[in-house]
This record gives sequence, structure tokens and C-alpha cells, in this order.
Amino acid sequence: MNPEIETFPNPKPGRKYLITHINPEFTSVCPITGLPDFATMTVKYIPDQLCLELKSLKYYFLQFRNKGIFYEDITNLILDELVAICKPLEMEIISEWSFRGGMRSIIEAKYIKE
Amino acid sequence: MNPEIETFPNPKPGRKYLITHINPEFTSVCPITGLPDFATMTVKYIPDQLCLELKSLKYYFLQFRNKGIFYEDITNLILDELVAICKPLEMEIISEWSFRGGMRSIIEAKYIKE
Amino acid sequence: MNPEIETFPNPKPGRKYLITHINPEFTSVCPITGLPDFATMTVKYIPDQLCLELKSLKYYFLQFRNKGIFYEDITNLILDELVAICKPLEMEIISEWSFRGGMRSIIEAKYIKE
Amino acid sequence: MNPEIETFPNPKPGRKYLITHINPEFTSVCPITGLPDFATMTVKYIPDQLCLELKSLKYYFLQFRNKGIFYEDITNLILDELVAICKPLEMEIISEWSFRGGMRSIIEAKYIKE
Amino acid sequence: MNPEIETFPNPKPGRKYLITHINPEFTSVCPITGLPDFATMTVKYIPDQLCLELKSLKYYFLQFRNKGIFYEDITNLILDELVAICKPLEMEIISEWSFRGGMRSIIEAKYIKE
Amino acid sequence: MNPEIETFPNPKPGRKYLITHINPEFTSVCPITGLPDFATMTVKYIPDQLCLELKSLKYYFLQFRNKGIFYEDITNLILDELVAICKPLEMEIISEWSFRGGMRSIIEAKYIKE
Amino acid sequence: MNPEIETFPNPKPGRKYLITHINPEFTSVCPITGLPDFATMTVKYIPDQLCLELKSLKYYFLQFRNKGIFYEDITNLILDELVAICKPLEMEIISEWSFRGGMRSIIEAKYIKE
Amino acid sequence: MNPEIETFPNPKPGRKYLITHINPEFTSVCPITGLPDFATMTVKYIPDQLCLELKSLKYYFLQFRNKGIFYEDITNLILDELVAICKPLEMEIISEWSFRGGMRSIIEAKYIKE
Amino acid sequence: MNPEIETFPNPKPGRKYLITHINPEFTSVCPITGLPDFATMTVKYIPDQLCLELKSLKYYFLQFRNKGIFYEDITNLILDELVAICKPLEMEIISEWSFRGGMRSIIEAKYIKE
Amino acid sequence: MNPEIETFPNPKPGRKYLITHINPEFTSVCPITGLPDFATMTVKYIPDQLCLELKSLKYYFLQFRNKGIFYEDITNLILDELVAICKPLEMEIISEWSFRGGMRSIIEAKYIKE
Repeated sequence: MNPEIETFPNPKPGRKYLITHINPEFTSVCPITGLPDFATMTVKYIPDQLCLELKSLKYYFLQFRNKGIFYEDITNLILDELVAICKPLEMEIISEWSFRGGMRSIIEAKYIKE
Repeated sequence: MNPEIETFPNPKPGRKYLITHINPEFTSVCPITGLPDFATMTVKYIPDQLCLELKSLKYYFLQFRNKGIFYEDITNLILDELVAICKPLEMEIISEWSFRGGMRSIIEAKYIKE
Repeated sequence: MNPEIETFPNPKPGRKYLITHINPEFTSVCPITGLPDFATMTVKYIPDQLCLELKSLKYYFLQFRNKGIFYEDITNLILDELVAICKPLEMEIISEWSFRGGMRSIIEAKYIKE
Repeated sequence: MNPEIETFPNPKPGRKYLITHINPEFTSVCPITGLPDFATMTVKYIPDQLCLELKSLKYYFLQFRNKGIFYEDITNLILDELVAICKPLEMEIISEWSFRGGMRSIIEAKYIKE
Repeated sequence: MNPEIETFPNPKPGRKYLITHINPEFTSVCPITGLPDFATMTVKYIPDQLCLELKSLKYYFLQFRNKGIFYEDITNLILDELVAICKPLEMEIISEWSFRGGMRSIIEAKYIKE
Repeated sequence: MNPEIETFPNPKPGRKYLITHINPEFTSVCPITGLPDFATMTVKYIPDQLCLELKSLKYYFLQFRNKGIFYEDITNLILDELVAICKPLEMEIISEWSFRGGMRSIIEAKYIKE
Repeated sequence: MNPEIETFPNPKPGRKYLITHINPEFTSVCPITGLPDFATMTVKYIPDQLCLELKSLKYYFLQFRNKGIFYEDITNLILDELVAICKPLEMEIISEWSFRGGMRSIIEAKYIKE
Repeated sequence: MNPEIETFPNPKPGRKYLITHINPEFTSVCPITGLPDFATMTVKYIPDQLCLELKSLKYYFLQFRNKGIFYEDITNLILDELVAICKPLEMEIISEWSFRGGMRSIIEAKYIKE
Repeated sequence: MNPEIETFPNPKPGRKYLITHINPEFTSVCPITGLPDFATMTVKYIPDQLCLELKSLKYYFLQFRNKGIFYEDITNLILDELVAICKPLEMEIISEWSFRGGMRSIIEAKYIKE
Repeated sequence: MNPEIETFPNPKPGRKYLITHINPEFTSVCPITGLPDFATMTVKYIPDQLCLELKSLKYYFLQFRNKGIFYEDITNLILDELVAICKPLEMEIISEWSFRGGMRSIIEAKYIKE
């Protein structure tokens, strides 16, 4: 991927506060069947010096629309890429997938700055 | 801003109890597009000597109706201003924003008196 | 107020167990406007030697129907009066008020026996 | 008002089908108190030759943000103006207002072409 | 009763449209036990020449707060009094009462101008 | 059964209005297994000269608590007995039963005066 | 199939009343994939001389547990078989199926005695 | 479009029954902005001689994933194409779109065989 | 009471796992008024060597159907009796009662093996 | 049982993240009555080196469709078998069963790697 997510300076860098962005329109493609997958993708983070710019975050998610990738991979990939870009104190990605074969799945991955 | 929020003496200053005010009719303006934003704005605090007067709190929130300001800024600004006025033992501001571009956001900032 | 709440002996005084009474029909009067206020009033407590008798508790709440009193006052007053009567190990009063001026409020006060 | 709502040709003019647009972010101002009112504003119509363009409809609704007008007036006014612009076979406006003074109101007005 | 409900001229007298006012904070007193009753009281009407003014309608409902009256009586009484005042084309009163003795009741009465 | 349901004169006999009483605590006994059945029992009627008195209706329902009777029988029996007592213009009994053997049942019977 | 559904005499044969049985635990097998299907199966009918016995109806539904059959077939088959057994005045079968391939289906078939 | 939706013979052609397929994972592209749109797409029909095969219907809907088309167009187009393929007695298409610009839309189009 | 609740050997005695049984059809009698009370009765426990057999637990609860006993007594009594029978590592009884006099109550009692 | 659940390498083995699979279509058979049981079966785990492959997990659950086994047994058995196969850092199985005899049960068992 070549994410170009923009950031802006945290307006209150000394305070540990929580930002949550919820995208119920996330969609990617199953790498085995080629059929689309649908998820609610949630980003929760405590910013350090940078905040994620909302519009570019939307375009970042749009890049997955026709990309084949597994649930576990995508959740960890998004966490890694967003952490690399905005260097937060903490970040959690939660992907909640719609029913496939009578089952539904949720993947939750968390990063804490050491 | 020039907030004129009134306070009244805490009727039970020795007890640490929790007051929550929930305003589902908060609206401000996006500083980039000029379009209105809508949020449920929640104030939770443990009073020390002063309590927030409810009617003046409503008028304080009304001042943002035509003001251009970002989600992260507004949440921290309200926390700073309300803390300055009523000097609580603890206070938390939670702003839950409606959908924009298929996504919705929540900002949660907390103050604890040292 | 002149509350005459009855009590009965705790049937299991050696066990720390939790009793909750929920009254969604609480109403009092705003001391400024004279207009009625409505709340769900919840009493949670761990009894020591005495339990609150339910019917007299209902009549106690009825005394506030035409009384002018503020949210923060009433919640702390009920906690003080009920603690004085049944001397619990712990007690919490939660008052959840209906919308006034586009906002709604919740007050939560707790007592723990030392 | 000076509404400049755009229209586009109905893509299936021979079929009587129903279009519904729901705006939960409508806000205007009470002409007596000067305080804001909030509503979910719904437009339902069966087009004849013209359809309402969605983005200009949004800007039309935004014009009411700082305008003082009563519930009954605004609902009938919007119906009159939208009927004049897109000349539908049928149109209904439903405005569902949030709580004021412990009460909430709904106004429903309908037009049928003769 | 001595209701002094104000009216204002219907802004669109030629159109048959529906106005609904919903009051979830209605309370009266049971004439037998003297205990309070609680209801959601709904007024739906198609105005002719006059509309009900909302604030005076609220004060009209407040008159029942300490009045002893039965469910069936009160619903028909309110219908009669509101019809007499605003002379609508149609009006319906729906009172939905909270639980008493493990049961809850709904009374619905309608007037149609002949 | 020996129902002694009281009635009182309809306060508005000339108007066809609807009265609904909902009892979510109805219980009887299965005549085959001897195990209890549970239902929400609803009475809807348009009174003629008489209304059902609510407290005696509650005691009438209590008589079924330890009585063995089938779903279809009980619903028709209650309709017959209540019609005989208050001679309404119309009456409907709806019994909604809880799960038995993985299934739940609803019986709806209606009477219209000829 | 060899359904052996029992019936019993309608206790109120002169009255047209509605009986509904709801089975949220219906399961059969897809004839193509061999994988199980799940549905809420609802039977609504107005009895003539006979009523469906509930326990035998449950066992009738159990016969489909390992049977391969399509949604449209099964719904019409159950309607035909139940009509043949209890000869109702009217009967409707509604099968609401769980998600398969991101879609869910509902089949509704009705019989009216001529 | 080049839809290749398969059909199968209606198993009960003499009976007018209703089939509903609900797809909450429909997505297409806005022809102006190039951004994705999301909808719940519902097909309701009374079959004549042919039924829609479910898997091919899913693939038909997938063809719109990267296609730019307006709400009103797509709903009427799907109705036209599905009617042409399975020649039903009646068919209705309901598309319920997610929020765009603070508003959401529903389009409902119906065909009845003459 | 003379409870004859059966037990069976815990199939996994070395693992601390949680078993919950929820009975929304619990009913007893108020010892003062003689009127029935209704509750959802929940048993949560971590078994040691024995598990509660579900069918005999149901019959145990049925014994309270016509017994007069207070909320606080019954909850503690059930906890004492079930602990005596299956000797769990931990057990909690939660009784949630329906509305009486406009209020509802919840009693929660817990046992932890020392 | 002879489960043949496939696994794949954890794509992010150094991070402790949570995977949840929810199957609301689980069904087995009561070993006493021979009647089917229904549950929502949830698997939550923190993977170490291996992840559970979703499709084979589905087929694993299908093996219980006609197998007679008790609630407590099945929950512990699934936990043991899945732990043996994918050797997670932590795993929890939650089975939530539908109503039987007016009661419903939940079994929750957890494994933590030592």
C-alpha cells in the first residue's frame, strides 16, 4: 500500500485524551474467493504530537476497496501503517466483519508506545 | 470565546459525587467547508466548591452554533474553559459527532485536579 | 422533610448483598420556574442490620411531588436521609432527569460506611 | 427565502415511484425565544418530470439555520417551495421536532397534484 | 377545569395537514387511592382555522397534576375541551398509562367534525 | 369460572373510543403437563354503556393462576366472559405466550356487536 | 414427507379467530451444498373445525432437520401439508431465512378457502 | 450492464406468493465524486413461471461495485432488468442508502404486470 | 422448602468456568397482600465437583409459585439452598422483580467459598 | 470427535491481539430427549503462532449437528480441542443456549497458557 494520510499538530499535546473514528462502510476483497468483504473499521488512539486528518483517513480506507487481503492481516496492517504515520501514545484497531458462511468475526489489535 | 457560565455553591462539598449534563443538540461549523457539524456533547464532573448552573451552560454551548472549529480543538477548549470556571475535582468532556463522509468520530478528554 | 420510612430486619445480616429499588415516576418542582421536574430515581444499597420497607419508600418519594428543590440538592438529601434511617454498609442514589432546555442531567452520589 | 434548489430530469418519468430524503440535522430558530429548534425533516415524493438534486436540497435546508419560524409555518413553507420547484405528482413533508418544555411535536403536510 | 389554552391562526387553512404534540410527562391523581398516575398524553389534530399554542397547552396539562380523575374520563375530557377551543377538522387524544397492579392501559378517543 | 368483574358507567357513551388493558403477568397451567404457562394478555374494547373496572379485571385474571386450560380455550373463554359482563360494541383478546418446546404462540379473537 | 400432525377440535368453531405459531429454531439442508439452512418459520391460520396440536407440529418441523430442500419449495410444501391436515379457513406460512452469501430471504405463502 | 441472472421454474406457479431477497451489502459509485455509495437493496416479487436464482442474483449485484450511477437510475434499472428476466406478476425494488452530507435517501419502485 | 435438586458430576472439575441459568418465568406470592410477584431469576456459578441438573432446578423454582415470601428473603434462601446442594466455588443469585407501586427492585447476593 | 480444523501462520506473532468468531447457527442434540439444542457459539482467542482457518472451523461446528452432548460438556470439549489445535496464548468459549423449559443457559470457559 502507499498510504498518504495527512496529519495535523495535536492541539493539546500535554493532555492524554482519546480520539475515535468509526467507519461502517469499510470494504475489501477476500483473497481466495475474490468476493467482497464488509466491516465496521474503528480507529481509537491517544495522540502524541500528531492527529490523523479525517478526510485523508477516509481515502486511505478506500484503497482497500478492491484489494484482496485476510481479516487478521488487514487489521494488523492498518495498525502498523497508522502508528507509523501519527506516532500515537496508544492506538487500537477494531474490525467487525459481516456474516460469511453463517459466522461473523471481530479482530482487535492494540499498540502501546514503550 | 467569552463564556459567562454561572456557578452556584456545591450543596454537599465534602462528598465526591458525579454530575452529568448531556446535550444532544450541540452544533458548530466546520472551519474548512463552512458546513454545520452536529454532536452530542456530554459534561461529567465531580464538583469541589462550585457547580455549573444549567441554563448558563446551555447558553455557553449556543455560542458555538456559528463558530468554525475542529472536533479535537472544541473538546479540549470546552474542558479548559469549564475547568477554569468551576474548578472541579475531576471533569470529562465527551463529544460524539454525527456522520461526515461515511465516518463518525468521538473525542474524550479528561481533567483530574492534582 | 419529615420522612417516615419504615425498616425491617435484614434477613441475612452476615452477607454483603446488593438491593436496588428503581422509581421511574419521581417528580418534584423546579424552585425557580415552579414547573415540574421528572426523574428516574434509583436507590442501591448493601444493608447492615436494616432494610428499607418498599411501600414507605414509595410514600417518602411522593412527598417531593410539590416541593421546590434543585437536582444536586435532592440527590444528596435523599442519600443523607436514607442513610440516617437504615444505616447501610454502602448506599448510592442515582437521579436521571428528563430533558430541560434541550439537555438532560444525571446526578450520582455514594455513601460508604467507614 | 430564496431557494435555489436544482432539479434533474426524472430518469423513469412513466413510472410512479417513491423518493424519500431524510435530514436528521435540520435546525431553525424559535421566533419568540430566539433559541434554536432541532428536527428530523423528511421529504417524500413521487416525481413527475423532475427530481430534486440532493446537494442543493441540503443547502436549501441550511438556509433555515438562523431563521426564526414556527413549526407549522416551516413545514407548509417547505412543502410549497419544493412543490413549486419540482412539480411532483405527490409530495409529503414530515418534521419531527425534539423536546421543548417536556413535549415534542410532529407536523405532516401532503400535496397531491390534481 | 378552567383551561385557558391560547390559539393562533392556522398558517395554511386550505390544506388538511396533521399536527401531533406528545407529552410523556403527564401526571394526575387516582380519585380512589389519592396516588399519582403517569401517562404519555398525545394530541393529534387536523386544524381548521386555529392551531393550539404549545406553551399554553403545556400549562393546560399541568392543571391535572393534583386533580383526581379516572383514565377514561380524563381522555374524553381533554378531547372535549381541546375540540371546543380550536375547533379542528379532526382530533384524537391517546393516553398511555404506566403500570398499576401489574397492568397498563391505553385510552384512544377521536373526534371528526361533521 | 365464577368471574365477578365489576363495571362502571361509560363516562362518554355516545363516542366510539378504544380502551386497551395490557397484562404481561398472566399465568395459567398446562392441562396436560401441569406446568405453568405465561402470557401477555391484552383486552381491547369499544365500550357501549359499561366499562371494565381495572382492579376487578386484575382479580379475574388471577383466577387462572392455578387452572389447567389450553391457549385457544382460554382466549375464547375470556372473550366470552368479558363480552357477557360489559356488553361492548367491539372487543378483542390477544394472548401472546412465552416459548414452549422452542416455539411461541399468539391467539387473537374478536367480537363485534351485531 | 410423512407428517403425522395431530389435530384437536376447534373449541370455538363459529368464531373467525387467528392462531399464530412461531418457530425460530427451524433448520433444513441446502440441496446443492449440503450445508444447513436456518429460519424462523411462522404458521398463521384461522381454524375451521380443527386446530393444530402444538407438540406434533414441533415434531413435524423436526423432520426437515436433515432434509435437502429449497426455500420456495419448503414454504409451499408446509402450507400444502398443513392445509390438508387441519383444513383451515385461511392459512399463511412465513419463512425468514438467515444470511447466506451476504443476503437473506423471506418467503410468504397464503391459502384462503374458497 | 450484461446481467446473467439465472432463473428456475416456480415450484408453485398457481399460487400468488411473495419472495423477498434483502442485500445489506450493496455498493456502487457516485458518478460525480467517484466515491462509493452503500445501500440495502431489497427485491420483493410475486413469481409467475420463473424464480430468481439467489447466487446469480448476488453476482448481478456485484457488477455495480465499481460502476458510477445515481440512486434513482440504479433502482429503476434493477427493476427493469429483473422484470425482463423473470417476468413476475409483481416486483418492487427498495434501495435504502447510507448517510451522505448529513442526509439519507430511500427509493422505492414497483412493477405490476398488466 | 424441601428442594430435591439433582446434581451431576462436573465434566471438567479442574477448570474454573462459569455456568449461568436464567429463568424469566419465576413467580411467588407477596406474604402481605397475597398477590403474585414476578421476577427474572438468574443463577450464576463456578462449579467445583457438582453441576446443577437443569430440569430439577426448574421444578425447584416451581415450588415458590404459591409460596408467600419477601424479595430479600427469597434471594438469600435460594442462594443458601443451591450452595448447600452443589457446593460451588462461587455462586450469585440475581432476582429482578417487575413493577409494584410504580417501582421495581433487583436483589443480588453472592457466595464465595473460603 | 475427529476435528480436522486447519490453521494458518499468525501474520503478526509478536503482537497480543484478539480474534473473535461468532456462530449464531450452532446446533447439537440433547442426549436425554434426542431433541435439538440451539446456541450462539463464540470463540475468542489471542493467537500465538497459529490462527484458526474460518471455513474449517465452520465444518468443525457442523459435526455437532446430530451429536448428543450436554451444554457443560460441549463447551469444555470445544475449548480443549481448539486449544490443542492452534495452541493460543488465551482462548475463551461462550455458548449461549436458547430457551428450554422456560429457562436459558450460558456456559463460559477460558484457557490461559501458563
